[in-house]
Amino acid sequence: MTEQPVDKYVEDLTSRLEKAIDNLSGQKHDHSIDNHIRDSQRSVKNQPVPYREKISKLSAEVVDSNPYSRLMALQRMGIVQDYEKIREKTVAVVGVGGVGSVVAEMLTRCGIGKLILFDYDKVEIANMNRLFYQPDQAGLSKVEAARDTLIHVNPDVQIEVHNFNITTMDNFDTFVGRIRNGSLTNGKIDLVLSCVDNFEARMAVNMACNEENQIWMESGVSENAVSGHIQYIEPGKTACFACVPPLVVASNIDERTLKREGVCAASLPTTMAVVAGFLVMNTLKFLLHFGEVSHYVGYNALADFFPRHSIKPNPTCEDSHCLIRQKEYQSKKSSETIDIDFQTTEEEPIVHEDNEWGIELVDESEPVTTTDEKTSSDVAEGLKFAYEPVKKEVESKEAGNTDRETAENAKNDALLKLKDILLEADMMKKMEEKNQLTKKH
Amino acid sequence: MTEQPVDKYVEDLTSRLEKAIDNLSGQKHDHSIDNHIRDSQRSVKNQPVPYREKISKLSAEVVDSNPYSRLMALQRMGIVQDYEKIREKTVAVVGVGGVGSVVAEMLTRCGIGKLILFDYDKVEIANMNRLFYQPDQAGLSKVEAARDTLIHVNPDVQIEVHNFNITTMDNFDTFVGRIRNGSLTNGKIDLVLSCVDNFEARMAVNMACNEENQIWMESGVSENAVSGHIQYIEPGKTACFACVPPLVVASNIDERTLKREGVCAASLPTTMAVVAGFLVMNTLKFLLHFGEVSHYVGYNALADFFPRHSIKPNPTCEDSHCLIRQKEYQSKKSSETIDIDFQTTEEEPIVHEDNEWGIELVDESEPVTTTDEKTSSDVAEGLKFAYEPVKKEVESKEAGNTDRETAENAKNDALLKLKDILLEADMMKKMEEKNQLTKKH
Repeated sequence: MTEQPVDKYVEDLTSRLEKAIDNLSGQKHDHSIDNHIRDSQRSVKNQPVPYREKISKLSAEVVDSNPYSRLMALQRMGIVQDYEKIREKTVAVVGVGGVGSVVAEMLTRCGIGKLILFDYDKVEIANMNRLFYQPDQAGLSKVEAARDTLIHVNPDVQIEVHNFNITTMDNFDTFVGRIRNGSLTNGKIDLVLSCVDNFEARMAVNMACNEENQIWMESGVSENAVSGHIQYIEPGKTACFACVPPLVVASNIDERTLKREGVCAASLPTTMAVVAGFLVMNTLKFLLHFGEVSHYVGYNALADFFPRHSIKPNPTCEDSHCLIRQKEYQSKKSSETIDIDFQTTEEEPIVHEDNEWGIELVDESEPVTTTDEKTSSDVAEGLKFAYEPVKKEVESKEAGNTDRETAENAKNDALLKLKDILLEADMMKKMEEKNQLTKKH
Repeated sequence: MTEQPVDKYVEDLTSRLEKAIDNLSGQKHDHSIDNHIRDSQRSVKNQPVPYREKISKLSAEVVDSNPYSRLMALQRMGIVQDYEKIREKTVAVVGVGGVGSVVAEMLTRCGIGKLILFDYDKVEIANMNRLFYQPDQAGLSKVEAARDTLIHVNPDVQIEVHNFNITTMDNFDTFVGRIRNGSLTNGKIDLVLSCVDNFEARMAVNMACNEENQIWMESGVSENAVSGHIQYIEPGKTACFACVPPLVVASNIDERTLKREGVCAASLPTTMAVVAGFLVMNTLKFLLHFGEVSHYVGYNALADFFPRHSIKPNPTCEDSHCLIRQKEYQSKKSSETIDIDFQTTEEEPIVHEDNEWGIELVDESEPVTTTDEKTSSDVAEGLKFAYEPVKKEVESKEAGNTDRETAENAKNDALLKLKDILLEADMMKKMEEKNQLTKKH
């Protein structure tokens, strides 16, 4: 059976409902029935229908009916110079789960120009412990359910969705193409936000962004639900995802209790909303040029501790495009007078001056590699690498790659297994005592 | 015209729609039409209809259809000892705007036993730059719109709503009564969360909680949208809202640009979700006894800076119930061996050892007042008081109150005006420079 007869049938019914509305006196009823007619038409035609007409120019007028008054106030208050610039920006969100869906909603409510959403999962009732999705969306694809809600929330935002896994070869090419041509003017997009929950997808985002010289931000939440982080990655300037094991925020939980047979990861709407909030705030600062774009913000919910960090790129990174970007950055930098980045603020933990990956405090104009083996405790307090790094051989970037690739593949396999050990107790022995004391409330 | 004929009419139409569904082949259509029939019935009868049946006991089973699997995993992972205890808890949320609505949604998705919501505002399109409310809810009262959504999200949560302003005398009495008898067993509730946006409402919550010896948490976001905080208040043990001017997180924005004629406050979904996330995480830690319940967490979004702080109660506080709670706490404490609270963690900024209000580092068993006049820079780095404190006279708690009350009223008027000056540039001159550098991205 085709969809046509049903469309007709529902249109008939809704037109009769519309007549019924005319006979109603209460405005409240008009209002809600009106919406549900709209919803019915929309669901049958499987096309989201916006709630209001598009707005051509943002207004700062302080009236209840203006969805942008509180955002345009950022201008008058001196926070943002030109808020309306946000309408020209395109952001890709990879993964619209517990973090990504909230990220997409925040950007939509902020009036971003265009969102490109990537995911291949379906909404499940098991996801209802996080914000955004509603139980009646269970069974729908996440990107379509998200689009449906977002267009309703703000029809001014252009939403493009891709219901596929970016890690397969064809889809990866499409993904790269959308980074290159996905903007509102069919040019390069402004930012990629990674909100995925696995290593392979992060590596795919990393590879695509290194290839396209695309700035992106990574986010993550721990499997015990009580820590998370965001990270800003600018190819050639900061460590890429392949440069070093990714940093995670340490918790005081024994990792041996995690990932047992049949134990699913925990998640909390709080941690996910906080990480989404950090990510979109960093995005707004980046897109609209205000405040300080953070390189890394961690969140340890058990202690309300927020480690910050910066990592320089690894001159022996295995991603060939990362090495190209590093060269480009070095030559660009050498024509500048001073290094304005990587200045630590007073709040930032001090990074130790040397470590095993040759990635910190090397003179940026002259990459240096070392073979020292040290522990990951060299990173800032409260942070640890997601897995222990494998010892790197010192080798020139010009070395032959075939044998190396085989070795790297084996290493990557090992790393993928090690990745399961995401969390470890290395931060605060005293916190455990504190927890006990807190229980006396 | 009564509602009955419309009910009948819609029931008729929906029954015919139901028959049409039987003729459809695609499951997706069945699903969405089915939901909209449900919605139509619900909206016409003006009663929220839950999406699923109630669940009598939380299960940790890892299946897509279990809304609690990811929460119960907190137990298996050793974070929470008995997650299901959350079902016995009752939390009041005062103010369901940009922060409070997200707080209510988080607690609902976490499966809290009961929520009591207080607000007297209506949903406006101008609120659509924050999470939670949908544009089609514009015009509805916030508490009713919230209940409608929350019952749909999780019917296991009991939702009680009060569409009134707690600061009027009658409503205040009702509010106090709900604190005293609002729990699932008609006893005292477990926690009050203040998510209001004005001084008077905070003072009303403070007064009620001091009277009822009720632990509460306060939250706030700045009028320039880029900072916020949460604060834990335990009567007699920590400073109450009347003890000292409330702390706010400093930003580097000149306050003279704020609150000009006709300029409305700015707001961002990011800041509000972060503050809501902090507040509900602190709530979960408090209710379920895990991690460290924070006394104060600030959020400066421009610099991703998170000041922490603790304030002891003021022995000359003007709230008479606060003084009673302080006495109770002192006598209870004197029978204990050591003070387990107010230990600063390494991450917490050091609090200066003396200041003008005699509230810090006094020997708790022997309150001391001073008349020294100092600046608010005595509080932890990055924090400032919402307004400059008025010089306090040293007077015994037994002093006559009539003249004092008149003076206090005048003072309060002055403070209310001073409160408008919420934000001030006193933190980081260097940050302004950094902002400029960031713009070079």
